[in-house]
Amino acid sequence: MAETAREFALIARHFRPLAGASALDLADDAAVLPVRGDRQFVVSADALIEGVHFFAEDPPDLVARKLLRVNLSDLAAMAATPYGYLLTLAVPRTTPDDWFAAFAAGLAVDQAQFGLSLLGGDTTSTPGSIALSLTIFGTVAPGQALLRSGAQPGDGVFVSGTIGDAALGLAVRRGALADPTGFLARRYLLPEPRLGLDLAGIAHAGADISDGLVQDLGHLCRAAGLAAAIEAEAVPRSEAARAAGPAFLTTCLTGGDDYELVLAVPPEREGALHQAGREGGVAFSRIGTFIAGPPVVQVRGADGQALALGAGGWSHF
Amino acid sequence: MAETAREFALIARHFRPLAGASALDLADDAAVLPVRGDRQFVVSADALIEGVHFFAEDPPDLVARKLLRVNLSDLAAMAATPYGYLLTLAVPRTTPDDWFAAFAAGLAVDQAQFGLSLLGGDTTSTPGSIALSLTIFGTVAPGQALLRSGAQPGDGVFVSGTIGDAALGLAVRRGALADPTGFLARRYLLPEPRLGLDLAGIAHAGADISDGLVQDLGHLCRAAGLAAAIEAEAVPRSEAARAAGPAFLTTCLTGGDDYELVLAVPPEREGALHQAGREGGVAFSRIGTFIAGPPVVQVRGADGQALALGAGGWSHF
Repeated sequence: MAETAREFALIARHFRPLAGASALDLADDAAVLPVRGDRQFVVSADALIEGVHFFAEDPPDLVARKLLRVNLSDLAAMAATPYGYLLTLAVPRTTPDDWFAAFAAGLAVDQAQFGLSLLGGDTTSTPGSIALSLTIFGTVAPGQALLRSGAQPGDGVFVSGTIGDAALGLAVRRGALADPTGFLARRYLLPEPRLGLDLAGIAHAGADISDGLVQDLGHLCRAAGLAAAIEAEAVPRSEAARAAGPAFLTTCLTGGDDYELVLAVPPEREGALHQAGREGGVAFSRIGTFIAGPPVVQVRGADGQALALGAGGWSHF
Repeated sequence: MAETAREFALIARHFRPLAGASALDLADDAAVLPVRGDRQFVVSADALIEGVHFFAEDPPDLVARKLLRVNLSDLAAMAATPYGYLLTLAVPRTTPDDWFAAFAAGLAVDQAQFGLSLLGGDTTSTPGSIALSLTIFGTVAPGQALLRSGAQPGDGVFVSGTIGDAALGLAVRRGALADPTGFLARRYLLPEPRLGLDLAGIAHAGADISDGLVQDLGHLCRAAGLAAAIEAEAVPRSEAARAAGPAFLTTCLTGGDDYELVLAVPPEREGALHQAGREGGVAFSRIGTFIAGPPVVQVRGADGQALALGAGGWSHF
């Protein structure tokens, strides 16, 4: 972690307490990971940008936790166990110390919850909006990482939890929808990475739903050279999402930021999937089937007709 | 790598050709690193921000290469061998395809030169300035990473190459200095990471000079609980830096972005260091000595008097 006068003080005060043993106390140019001949490292990076992925007025502790959790979700999608992370922060020079304190406190909460620690990173100023980037490290037994490829014709399409809450939470933030209980806004602010589920022997393929169900299921289809046929009514929606009404169905199917899992599971392992879900504290729902055909996602409505979803998926571009 | 419509196209066109085997063709949520029981992974992350670390008008291929090289320099500081990297790009929506093409072309040049490949990452839009973050992976034999701690009293302070060129290059960019050959501007735009030097058996401690010689040597002092006494006149400066005159001496000693190495080397290994430098194509210069005392860097001028350097070091804050 390159340091300068203010950075050095910031790191010492706020981030050194978060450092794990591999981080060399954040005093070196890099972290050294242990030799682990019995495990493979799985690595991923995701960025959150102020004004794109979060609002300037969002509490810094929740921004920090969302940053960590969207990356943890990539580990969940690979059926990996969290190990640690590197963090780069670009923030305006005028950012008060309180902001860093709250940001680090949020990281501390989720480090404890998910069992990982800070390995290093970089802090710098920016003349623009806050730009956060996190690289996450997990481990898997060799060859056991769950990939996007591998779905087979006849596999069920399964999703964890409920779908669409985060996109509706964003609509709430924009004033387009009421949210009397605050449930939808919370689902947008603080996703729940689906870790701790032993899926490697159960699912043929999987991904997390970051860009929208249709979009991310499409990735599984492309990786397998298969189509997927799903029923809109079978897609699990929360009470709050159902209360939003049919006008928001497309939002639920194509909106991003849920960080639930979408999996390809063969029929004979559906019982094992439900058991893994019960043990891990999340329900899985079967919403359709992978079928032979060009890699598209076919969505049927309650009337049996294909739904037109437009471009589908959430685009940050 | 989370993808959406435009991101997917950008990644396929520009970044997939850069991907290594561990990257799973950039089609998955994370990269899986091989099991390497005989090597340790060394990881580091550094960000470059438009308007802070580079100028909007800088050629994108050189920005990409600088981003990769400042991170490679962290591997050089640990005496590690490059393996791969994750990249997060936050760029304005209006960024033309040409920018990405040039950026990726720069990465390709340096991937080939330094022997590493892209493992994954994230692309997103930003309403602000371009924010680039790169996480680099290297490998070392177990226990052989060169750390900042470990300097001993009596160790020589050595630096690679010439010091101060990049800070003078920045002064050139700001119109404060002439640069008839373009040498100084090039040293600012395209640092040379000092890789491929087998330093683990030679140096007691080391760091790269990213924040300025005095600042980064100060890190070695703090990590060892030692002082360092250096002679300003012994600090190697390029012909162009000497031509800038004595008014720029402090800039050379405290300016950042050189990405040379500063090392603690015991007297009996100085010959081995010079030999390693000859084999690796870079000269090492002895500029002073680590001594018992509080962790400060004492700089003496040609007259034998202590130089007052102000706060010292380059601060991005």
